Amino acid sequence: MPTLDPGLRSLREVVCAANLELHRQGLVLYTFGNASGIDRERGLVAIKPSGIDYQELTPDRLVIVDLQNRVVEGSMRPSSDTRTHTALYRAWTDIGGVAHTHSIQATAWCQAGRELPCLGTTHADHCHGPVPCTVPPSAAEIEAEYEEATGQQILNAFIGRDHRSVPMVLVARHGPFTWGASPAQAVYHAVVLERLALLATVTRTIDPSVDALPAAILDKHYFRKHGPSATYGQHS
Amino acid sequence: MPTLDPGLRSLREVVCAANLELHRQGLVLYTFGNASGIDRERGLVAIKPSGIDYQELTPDRLVIVDLQNRVVEGSMRPSSDTRTHTALYRAWTDIGGVAHTHSIQATAWCQAGRELPCLGTTHADHCHGPVPCTVPPSAAEIEAEYEEATGQQILNAFIGRDHRSVPMVLVARHGPFTWGASPAQAVYHAVVLERLALLATVTRTIDPSVDALPAAILDKHYFRKHGPSATYGQHS
Amino acid sequence: MPTLDPGLRSLREVVCAANLELHRQGLVLYTFGNASGIDRERGLVAIKPSGIDYQELTPDRLVIVDLQNRVVEGSMRPSSDTRTHTALYRAWTDIGGVAHTHSIQATAWCQAGRELPCLGTTHADHCHGPVPCTVPPSAAEIEAEYEEATGQQILNAFIGRDHRSVPMVLVARHGPFTWGASPAQAVYHAVVLERLALLATVTRTIDPSVDALPAAILDKHYFRKHGPSATYGQHS
Amino acid sequence: MPTLDPGLRSLREVVCAANLELHRQGLVLYTFGNASGIDRERGLVAIKPSGIDYQELTPDRLVIVDLQNRVVEGSMRPSSDTRTHTALYRAWTDIGGVAHTHSIQATAWCQAGRELPCLGTTHADHCHGPVPCTVPPSAAEIEAEYEEATGQQILNAFIGRDHRSVPMVLVARHGPFTWGASPAQAVYHAVVLERLALLATVTRTIDPSVDALPAAILDKHYFRKHGPSATYGQHS
Repeated sequence: MPTLDPGLRSLREVVCAANLELHRQGLVLYTFGNASGIDRERGLVAIKPSGIDYQELTPDRLVIVDLQNRVVEGSMRPSSDTRTHTALYRAWTDIGGVAHTHSIQATAWCQAGRELPCLGTTHADHCHGPVPCTVPPSAAEIEAEYEEATGQQILNAFIGRDHRSVPMVLVARHGPFTWGASPAQAVYHAVVLERLALLATVTRTIDPSVDALPAAILDKHYFRKHGPSATYGQHS
Repeated sequence: MPTLDPGLRSLREVVCAANLELHRQGLVLYTFGNASGIDRERGLVAIKPSGIDYQELTPDRLVIVDLQNRVVEGSMRPSSDTRTHTALYRAWTDIGGVAHTHSIQATAWCQAGRELPCLGTTHADHCHGPVPCTVPPSAAEIEAEYEEATGQQILNAFIGRDHRSVPMVLVARHGPFTWGASPAQAVYHAVVLERLALLATVTRTIDPSVDALPAAILDKHYFRKHGPSATYGQHS
Repeated sequence: MPTLDPGLRSLREVVCAANLELHRQGLVLYTFGNASGIDRERGLVAIKPSGIDYQELTPDRLVIVDLQNRVVEGSMRPSSDTRTHTALYRAWTDIGGVAHTHSIQATAWCQAGRELPCLGTTHADHCHGPVPCTVPPSAAEIEAEYEEATGQQILNAFIGRDHRSVPMVLVARHGPFTWGASPAQAVYHAVVLERLALLATVTRTIDPSVDALPAAILDKHYFRKHGPSATYGQHS
Repeated sequence: MPTLDPGLRSLREVVCAANLELHRQGLVLYTFGNASGIDRERGLVAIKPSGIDYQELTPDRLVIVDLQNRVVEGSMRPSSDTRTHTALYRAWTDIGGVAHTHSIQATAWCQAGRELPCLGTTHADHCHGPVPCTVPPSAAEIEAEYEEATGQQILNAFIGRDHRSVPMVLVARHGPFTWGASPAQAVYHAVVLERLALLATVTRTIDPSVDALPAAILDKHYFRKHGPSATYGQHS
């Protein structure tokens, strides 16, 4: 095995920890799902290898790719979703991590092809509005560059929407992608999304006619936690 | 760090234990939720700091505030829901603890903006009637004093209703608050409410037309456990 | 503390183990639920004390009552459901144990006031037909002898039905009771009932129009496991 | 106890491990469910004994039967579903293991008598199309050779369908059967099926009108993981 670049050690460690956290939080079954992180200075991404069990995952086993999806380091094939991750890193230069799961409730909303409505303050505390659902790929897109096309559909869903105030998306018929300043935050958003989706499913079971939270409460809760006027937490 | 008042030590300990119990019972995800307790002689409340992980919580880290929400002891910012807690302590002088969660089933009923009907004896053993849901705040209330207004909406929901015989409330679009003679009892009621809400969700899934328990059974079960004629438990 | 009758030691032990198993299987929250067992030769029943945490339960703490509900041994008050247990022991002289829970799915069917239909072979493997639901008590019954009346309603639900081939019942608006040759078997039936109720809830969610299993399959499965022609297990 | 054939030791070990994995994954309650494996050279099948707790299962306790269901080795009675397993082994000579469970979501779809539609890519990653549901047995079949008939109904459901690209079936009113190249893969498919069924139940709860995944996406995902053009995992 060739010597690994020591400059990528800490990236490998945070990305490995993020992948293991996905597993610990119960968001992934077997090898479904993956998390990645980027070293912005070098333009390199560390990502889970394709089809590897979480139990066997170590920092050294991660694959390093560049933003054109070329493997730079690692003997294994990278996740089959790699092109979707890199499409997001190229478009949104302020994100540091991406996570993808097939978590139950979020995936069910994807399968239903529905955006996740903001039905309460738990949602408003984390997302400034509904979580969009992508438009399904055309037959031509599926044929040509499917994983690349998935990235493009996500970016399309954020035209006119800020990816920082809604750090998550539902890919139609597939599963959710989430992102954040770091791989750990991307995973945090994956866990939060699963909870928001569960709350929405149960709420609509109790009353199918519940509609979106009024904008005034949405703003109050979102900006209590985010932005210059935030009063939540110990960060000010 | 300044020396902590030894007279508040036991209050800090019971409130810390109550917060950890919320976490152990699976009612809170990450930093969502909080529990508080009051020293009635001194008029001081111990509450969880805002945005702190339950794993890092110790008695010394709790914040002490007075009933006008002034921080008396502690270097961290108190929970963003503090004004709701103190509004309840000011109005109801016989309660010793308050808990707030975003637990799944109770929060879904809040999001649906529905009172939780009393559908069976499990409910009647703990609450003498439905758990009310608050009226959502007006735009003016949201702007001015949102957390204070939440407290006021809870008190409004108990006009003509005894807060001792229904020790819990659903805050519309937000989540539940519960209370009791002590912080531990407030948490007990949070756990019970989550179970009652789950039972109601499943019951209505089986048959959407089920209506409230007849008053005679409600009274029988409630007064078997509560008040001068109680025969349940070993307390008489 | 007075010396306990050594002749009741093994009854105390099996009943204590049955109560702890209810807790271990996740069927009870806090002090909800109870299991009992009978020594048929002496006509004495061991049952959980009222309102005691499962963590504090030991064989010595169980209460011994006779079939007229008189406390024979024990310093604590017996479960508030004791009169329901003894009504079953008096009527059905071949049962050795009774269990009562507020387990989620079974209780939801009780709250809906519906019998649990036999929708598949998992049900048919354990019960020869639907699990009946009692008729709710009249106002007069609630006033007079509520727990005794619950026992009578259960017995009424089994007029023309064999309590051995359907060892479980849904008490309307309340929760399930189950029984068996021993306290352990009563608890086994409580666990099985919770699973059958869950399967029925999900099945009806998928398709509300699913009706009962045809009689030929019901008979095939039930008699494969029960009675003289049984071929299941290693018991023949 | 007679000496066991050492040539069957490794078959016994993989089948025992597969049965224990069914239990560890939460797919079986008490003794419900079973897994088997075949030694194709010798035409012998190892299967779980009927009605035995998973805690007591050891490789030595498995029963060895031939493809005509004759017990070749073992003092216990084989699983009551043995004839269904052997019917599959006789018809599909490329499978090495079979599993049967009463797992909650898959069983609910069986009880509803519905095929499991392919609603998303999680399903398409594992099955090339819907999971079929068998036609219920006739009264005559139930009387005569019930377990044999179950095998025949499964085979009928695969007329015109490839059992390798859909390695699972829903037996109407009963529960799922799954298979694979090995007992471990059969169990893997049982776990995957339970997840696919759960995703479908929640998806249809959110929107009852969701229909099957378009064929282009189904093909893309299925063939990304299976067959000569697969790019998933590290197997190429």
